[in-house]
Amino acid sequence: MTNTNELQTPVSGDVQQAVNALADAAAIAQHELAQATADTKNGVLMAIADALDAHASDIADANAMDMQAAFDAGMDQGKLDRLKFDVIRVAAAAQGVRHVATLPDPVGEIVRGYDLGNGLRLQQQRVPLGVIGMIYEARPNVTVDVAALCLKSGNAAILRGGHAAERTNAATLQVIDEVLQELHFDPALVASVDRYGREGARAMMRATGHIDVLIPRGGAGLIQSVVHESRVPVIETGAGNVHIYVDSSADIDKAIDIVVNAKTQRVGVCNAAEKLIVHRDIARQFLPRMAQALARAHVTIHADELSMRIMGDADIKDIQLLAADEADWGTEYLALEIGVRIVDSLDEAIDHINRYSTHHTESILSQDYTNIERFTKAIDSAVVMVNASTRFTDGGVFGFGAELGISTQKLHARGPMGLQEMTTTKWVGYGNGQVRA
Amino acid sequence: MTNTNELQTPVSGDVQQAVNALADAAAIAQHELAQATADTKNGVLMAIADALDAHASDIADANAMDMQAAFDAGMDQGKLDRLKFDVIRVAAAAQGVRHVATLPDPVGEIVRGYDLGNGLRLQQQRVPLGVIGMIYEARPNVTVDVAALCLKSGNAAILRGGHAAERTNAATLQVIDEVLQELHFDPALVASVDRYGREGARAMMRATGHIDVLIPRGGAGLIQSVVHESRVPVIETGAGNVHIYVDSSADIDKAIDIVVNAKTQRVGVCNAAEKLIVHRDIARQFLPRMAQALARAHVTIHADELSMRIMGDADIKDIQLLAADEADWGTEYLALEIGVRIVDSLDEAIDHINRYSTHHTESILSQDYTNIERFTKAIDSAVVMVNASTRFTDGGVFGFGAELGISTQKLHARGPMGLQEMTTTKWVGYGNGQVRA
Repeated sequence: MTNTNELQTPVSGDVQQAVNALADAAAIAQHELAQATADTKNGVLMAIADALDAHASDIADANAMDMQAAFDAGMDQGKLDRLKFDVIRVAAAAQGVRHVATLPDPVGEIVRGYDLGNGLRLQQQRVPLGVIGMIYEARPNVTVDVAALCLKSGNAAILRGGHAAERTNAATLQVIDEVLQELHFDPALVASVDRYGREGARAMMRATGHIDVLIPRGGAGLIQSVVHESRVPVIETGAGNVHIYVDSSADIDKAIDIVVNAKTQRVGVCNAAEKLIVHRDIARQFLPRMAQALARAHVTIHADELSMRIMGDADIKDIQLLAADEADWGTEYLALEIGVRIVDSLDEAIDHINRYSTHHTESILSQDYTNIERFTKAIDSAVVMVNASTRFTDGGVFGFGAELGISTQKLHARGPMGLQEMTTTKWVGYGNGQVRA
Repeated sequence: MTNTNELQTPVSGDVQQAVNALADAAAIAQHELAQATADTKNGVLMAIADALDAHASDIADANAMDMQAAFDAGMDQGKLDRLKFDVIRVAAAAQGVRHVATLPDPVGEIVRGYDLGNGLRLQQQRVPLGVIGMIYEARPNVTVDVAALCLKSGNAAILRGGHAAERTNAATLQVIDEVLQELHFDPALVASVDRYGREGARAMMRATGHIDVLIPRGGAGLIQSVVHESRVPVIETGAGNVHIYVDSSADIDKAIDIVVNAKTQRVGVCNAAEKLIVHRDIARQFLPRMAQALARAHVTIHADELSMRIMGDADIKDIQLLAADEADWGTEYLALEIGVRIVDSLDEAIDHINRYSTHHTESILSQDYTNIERFTKAIDSAVVMVNASTRFTDGGVFGFGAELGISTQKLHARGPMGLQEMTTTKWVGYGNGQVRA
């Protein structure tokens, strides 16, 4: 049962030492940043945004080289699009930094505070986490987002972007570096391990005591490898095998709108619906109309036996219908595909979802108070929607302004992670000579 | 740089499977408990307390056998005292369970809640963490405490107590087991891996996806081995190399009282002071009187060069004075010993503390507003006291009623961990057909 990944992929002592040293320098710089006022930090962000605009063409030139190399290496169109960081996208990223500057600063917020009987005044205050490590795929806008969110929340960032974006990231980080120096902040606050390639990422995962938390962002493969290999505490993000349960009491018109929206409003995102669980008592009224709407939206349906029969019997134009197997229930399609299963009861739906879900977001469509109460309590996921699209699980929609990712684990942060989730707390007790009796 | 502990201590597949199965059964039972009302959970706790009273002599008999075996094996007096669970202590533990029943239930608390512009009502609610693993030393009262705290907060508990307490823990858990069965709760809610010995503890550390969080409680050795070896998320607790900084502006009379209290009011606890950092400008006035008070309390002083000279020159009765070396600064004595160092500035004090501290509790004794502000912001510890004893860092004192331990890490919980820290959150969105535009 022992996981030996890290022995299969050793890290040279030199690289480990170099990455630990980057993190330690970041920690020292972070101790100063932690004491900066919100005004000061916002000033840094505004200067970074201006500098990104001023150097947009340098960054775009570096990106053009990355794009060419990736194209030559046969990168697919979707990934090439995510890699693209032309002057328009640099300008959009700069606007994003200005937006982060407008968000409230979580640092210093008093979470709890009260006097003990002896006059000692206790306050639990929000403080930055420290050094946040981020391992992500070749998406240069993430570099800008994460740097801005970390600086705003008083944290240092150690970054490993994808290999394909190395020139773009280097050009971007140089701009940030120069602004930090100009404003007399230590550029160690935002550092990259890209020069060490994949070994740098693995060294980050072993930088226990140097990096406070590691956040992987990207595909399921990347996230799982970080979760399994890391010795540094990880916040697991992203993967969404998202379910919608259509109860026997559901409003069918609304249900069809919600499922179509949750599946097709944007494809390939973690909060898109992947599975439709339907109560047997509504299946014959609901499924033929639902299937017609999905067919019109070019969604392929992976159906269990009974739902296959119901949809197959109906006369549905252009339907793409496949038989679902066990593997379907655990699959996040990230495509115009959806799995459909009929259940005999609410409890069967809950059991199925808790078994196969990645604990991101699930939704119940129902008019029955008791069933809604039971579903929202029993479902073990970060977000449970009632009569609403799963697409609402998003830091921006939740009012966080920007998000670092969506946590699908239970410790520290659960659901969209904004600036508040990038903090921890510190208790301060103000006394005047109190001793314990 | 690779940690290979787990390869030196393999776990048999059978034991791993058995421990995973215990945790999975606990998780299923926990899903039901999570939906129990506070009244129901309090009823279970009161029944457990009554059953502990009714079976106190059975538990005490089992403990007498553990005590005899430990005595024969040469266990020292301090550990024997912690192992002791006679009828008086069982009664005290039962009272503790009744006290937990009176505490507010954190489950269901709305942490944040607001309407989105589209009418979707979002609520972030507290929910139990799930399955909590606890690895601790031979202290049978911890078994009762943890079971009560877990049940109250809607969590399941997987326990590994020390080998020396196995008979006592088995007798205690049998009482709890019978109450759970009687009240139609699944006894899998509180399970022990003691039957698998140390291999059981190691299997808990590898039960990724089965146990949600692992909390080690005990000596530094136990905690560090769990932190380094565990694959399951760990909340690090306990170790306290606690500092008191005496600023040049300190009130000397109060400072002496606070240091004596922090060092001697209870010895061998994590919130006792271990180091005294003194500003040079107050050293000659403060240290001779301080040393006299410490000598009267039989505290041995490990002094740096300058403080050694100052205290050595003074005429102090019964002083025990040793030269401190580098190793002293990182040592948690857990005894009537204290390290003393003189610094030239507040910043030197802060640097020393942030370097050597275990990030548990530190205190500044000062009348200077600016210095207090700087110290409380710059010190990177779970609790910072101002003009008060470090002994106040305690869940009971903080008003939590009971504590699972004191977290010295930053993720999820920092400082004393009570019922609230044993929860995570879940977002629930109540809509009426909302889709994303």
